[in-house]
Amino acid sequence: MSESAAKLREAFKQSAYRLAGHSERTVQVLKEAFRDVDGELESDMYGSGEAIERFEAKMAAFLGKEAAVFFPSGTMAQQIALRIWCDRKGLKRVAYHPLSHLEIHEEDGLKKLHGIEAVLLSDRDRVLGAADVLDMREEVSSILLELPQREIGGQLPSYEELETISSHCKERGIKLHLDGARLLESLPYYGRTAEEACRLFDSVYLSVYKGIGGIAGAVLAGDASFGAEAKVWKRRHGGDLISLYPYVLSADYYFERRKDSMGRYYEGAVRLAERFNRCPGMSTRPETPVTNMFHVHLSMPKEAAESWLTDVIRGTGVGVTHYVRAAGENRSYFELAVGDRYGAIPTAALDRLFERLGEGKRA
Amino acid sequence: MSESAAKLREAFKQSAYRLAGHSERTVQVLKEAFRDVDGELESDMYGSGEAIERFEAKMAAFLGKEAAVFFPSGTMAQQIALRIWCDRKGLKRVAYHPLSHLEIHEEDGLKKLHGIEAVLLSDRDRVLGAADVLDMREEVSSILLELPQREIGGQLPSYEELETISSHCKERGIKLHLDGARLLESLPYYGRTAEEACRLFDSVYLSVYKGIGGIAGAVLAGDASFGAEAKVWKRRHGGDLISLYPYVLSADYYFERRKDSMGRYYEGAVRLAERFNRCPGMSTRPETPVTNMFHVHLSMPKEAAESWLTDVIRGTGVGVTHYVRAAGENRSYFELAVGDRYGAIPTAALDRLFERLGEGKRA
Repeated sequence: MSESAAKLREAFKQSAYRLAGHSERTVQVLKEAFRDVDGELESDMYGSGEAIERFEAKMAAFLGKEAAVFFPSGTMAQQIALRIWCDRKGLKRVAYHPLSHLEIHEEDGLKKLHGIEAVLLSDRDRVLGAADVLDMREEVSSILLELPQREIGGQLPSYEELETISSHCKERGIKLHLDGARLLESLPYYGRTAEEACRLFDSVYLSVYKGIGGIAGAVLAGDASFGAEAKVWKRRHGGDLISLYPYVLSADYYFERRKDSMGRYYEGAVRLAERFNRCPGMSTRPETPVTNMFHVHLSMPKEAAESWLTDVIRGTGVGVTHYVRAAGENRSYFELAVGDRYGAIPTAALDRLFERLGEGKRA
Repeated sequence: MSESAAKLREAFKQSAYRLAGHSERTVQVLKEAFRDVDGELESDMYGSGEAIERFEAKMAAFLGKEAAVFFPSGTMAQQIALRIWCDRKGLKRVAYHPLSHLEIHEEDGLKKLHGIEAVLLSDRDRVLGAADVLDMREEVSSILLELPQREIGGQLPSYEELETISSHCKERGIKLHLDGARLLESLPYYGRTAEEACRLFDSVYLSVYKGIGGIAGAVLAGDASFGAEAKVWKRRHGGDLISLYPYVLSADYYFERRKDSMGRYYEGAVRLAERFNRCPGMSTRPETPVTNMFHVHLSMPKEAAESWLTDVIRGTGVGVTHYVRAAGENRSYFELAVGDRYGAIPTAALDRLFERLGEGKRA
């Protein structure tokens, strides 16, 4: 880590308030979730038992699917979903966006473990839309759509496009899989329930530690036969742990606590982005957020941005970000996802922050 | 579940004392492990951070290997170990016992995810020994040895046989992998340290929830390049969770609490087996245990054994077992692994139990 990056991280650590997230990722997250859990509650045992089955049933109902299976990770859940659809069709080819989690964060697991080839749809810089699907020439077993697309600032296609994609896939016998790591965060913009949105998809993955803020884990949902197959693959992957309750019970706790707050996080993101866009040399992507997330772009190189933001954080007490990434030679950016902490910042501190940001970087 | 099996399970649940194990698998196991952990301690982040690195370093030193990697499960850890050895040799074939965990409990993950074929060494009923390895005709990349072999009552080859196997594998360029799910439980019989025993192996897997009694998880150890590759595969498998600390910190807690008790568990098993072997129609396998584990065989069918043991448990207050398995038409058995609970049974209760068992089943 460079010196300027380390200083930014340190200033962030010392800051009294934070723009993004729910809380620090500390052991306290677990302690809070388990404080009121009865110690006598029996562990789940390899996917069975009250501790896991109750949450899976709740998630199946919430997502409007026959079956939901709890997984240790989304990486595992999604590879398995695509493998099931590929095996059913006898064709080991799927399609997704070039910046899909499977393409850039999983060390080619889909290919190296499952032998599945990927067709990359859309350009890196824009959201995957209906035209990309309708124009696709390659035959595939499944298409994975990520809602929202995290790597481009949390963008969403319109709901009408989703409906078009869904109908097209049904007609062509292509299974549509939802990478819904941040599904809940997308619902306020669409004005739909999870059940309504999931009706457009054959299988759905949901993360329990993004907007929900659990410790780790994922839910994979689909029809009953899909769920049964997913459990077999979960065992093959080494994900059928004797005890998943540390993740399951904390997921349940934070799901109940935050599922109805997604509209508030989204509105916070819209307001925050407006204020960033009024600052010289700063702009957000998307300009108007459609979820609780957006990217803040700065018209200065990474190191300059790090130094400047370190000063801003020290001067205002508001932790804007703990890192900055380069975006070309003279530009940089960071990601913001609004959670519980945004609402806890005093108005005066926030005003102080944007006053300072509004002055721009002094020479 | 049959009525007699359900009754046995219920009687066991109601019993005041238990022959096997450390404690119930309840949420209390987590609560106890985290009671004194500082809530401010930061979560591990995708395999990095103090919470995970400290325990991995401790395990690497304990096992005498350059690197140790924490995994959510042994299933994942072992498939990955074998995959690494197969890739290095360019030969997707390994050898292990017909009752290896990989062969009977993993839904063919090794084959379906990694395309690795298995040569089955030894017979189902006996321990895999040096002769099996020396006589093997097939070329393989790796041999997996399970110490002790759980499915045959926790049997062990002699240490001399292990040394012969290890030398033979070195000469032939075959990597020797240790399925040490219960490695610690084997050490008192061998009279060796973990480091000494692991020196015979190129890679080692250790479970943290058998003798150690953690919540879930596994450690995979080997040289530095093996460890680095294992981390890449861990990500591919979906095992590189954002937070593994619920398993890591509890593993550390119970490791410290129980690592020096394995001799006591082993001695308890030897004494218990002696007493079972004096009862009519009962015998243990092995006759004299070599770890904390053995099987108790009964010369009666499963249902008869269930009914009889239900009566015995109700009459004595000692939970002998919660299940019985059929072993042919007129025989049955159950597994016992001695842990903390054995030592907590009052002598009088244990005497009452074996007096009752010594009377045999009345007609």
